[in-house]
Amino acid sequence: MTSFNVVLFDGFETLDVFGPVEVFGKLPKRYAIHYFSSQGGIVAGGQNVKIDTLSLSKLCDDDVLLIPGGMGTRTLINDESFIQKLKILAERAEYVLSVCTGAALLAKTGLLDGRTATTNKMAWGFVTSHGQNVAWDKSARWAKDGKYYTSAGVSAGIDMAFGFIADIHGIETARDITKYLEYAWDENDTDDDFSYLAEVN
Amino acid sequence: MTSFNVVLFDGFETLDVFGPVEVFGKLPKRYAIHYFSSQGGIVAGGQNVKIDTLSLSKLCDDDVLLIPGGMGTRTLINDESFIQKLKILAERAEYVLSVCTGAALLAKTGLLDGRTATTNKMAWGFVTSHGQNVAWDKSARWAKDGKYYTSAGVSAGIDMAFGFIADIHGIETARDITKYLEYAWDENDTDDDFSYLAEVN
Repeated sequence: MTSFNVVLFDGFETLDVFGPVEVFGKLPKRYAIHYFSSQGGIVAGGQNVKIDTLSLSKLCDDDVLLIPGGMGTRTLINDESFIQKLKILAERAEYVLSVCTGAALLAKTGLLDGRTATTNKMAWGFVTSHGQNVAWDKSARWAKDGKYYTSAGVSAGIDMAFGFIADIHGIETARDITKYLEYAWDENDTDDDFSYLAEVN
Repeated sequence: MTSFNVVLFDGFETLDVFGPVEVFGKLPKRYAIHYFSSQGGIVAGGQNVKIDTLSLSKLCDDDVLLIPGGMGTRTLINDESFIQKLKILAERAEYVLSVCTGAALLAKTGLLDGRTATTNKMAWGFVTSHGQNVAWDKSARWAKDGKYYTSAGVSAGIDMAFGFIADIHGIETARDITKYLEYAWDENDTDDDFSYLAEVN
């Protein structure tokens, strides 16, 4: 059983989390989903949701780590203690997935340096400014480089989650899950339809 | 300001909720999102999430009501007290939206009788058995009949949410929100790609 560990914080974007979680949740014998935050307890996400979490100090598995985006990243990016903690967690994780502006937090750890990555095209300037040595790929729907998966904005995280499942468990497993979600998976990780937005954001 | 009131219960499907919530959350000056459950307090959803809610007794607005699906509907469908409460809430709501097997709960109230509706194609038999007098539409991605909107499975709720926004606020508003979500909205409410699944489920 692999732990699928979600790192939450005030102002996280809900669909960044619950898109991928929905996909991984359809393999309950393979992935046990847990939610964490710096201090544990209730975290106030975007869209007025309040979610109960465990403290990050209790996260101790070789795991898949999910880092969502959201408006909360704009302040968290300057929290050096959090970024340092995230770096340790990401280093020891088996795989690290970021969605949307979660890539800014991951880039700030330095772990994406020299790697290919992508992020939300509507927040391109903000995120890429925090990863000057990252090979940012504007055209990617999601990018994969070693153990790091990064997706474009919000719903692209769902496509990335299916891409990850396909890489690890085979594409038929991924396609089978799409039926339960009635989701039209964009299997193509390149040519994001929203790439043009990166030019002006 | 319109209240967008989400009815949660143990075993609700997370993406059924956080897909539509993400869409409505992009109009924060129009919609205030709130989460309710029968007793209030922490609700344990699918995918191991725990969400803090208000008691349904505190829900008192002319509102948009969202009823998600999930495995929890299989037991809740037999909870007459809940169904009766849901009926009262749905009757006084300005609009009622169900996602996935949430349509079973709504059908059980009788309020969909004589109306066109749809639901998850993977759970077609279960849901439709609870609404013998509903005009179930297998081919619909989402269906609209008066104030009632019902969507097919899970991610179809996102398409329905955009459809609702388009109906009320215009299609350009809906399309504009797709950019923030980087979501490839299926604007067509008919011809669900997953309709064929209803034949065997």
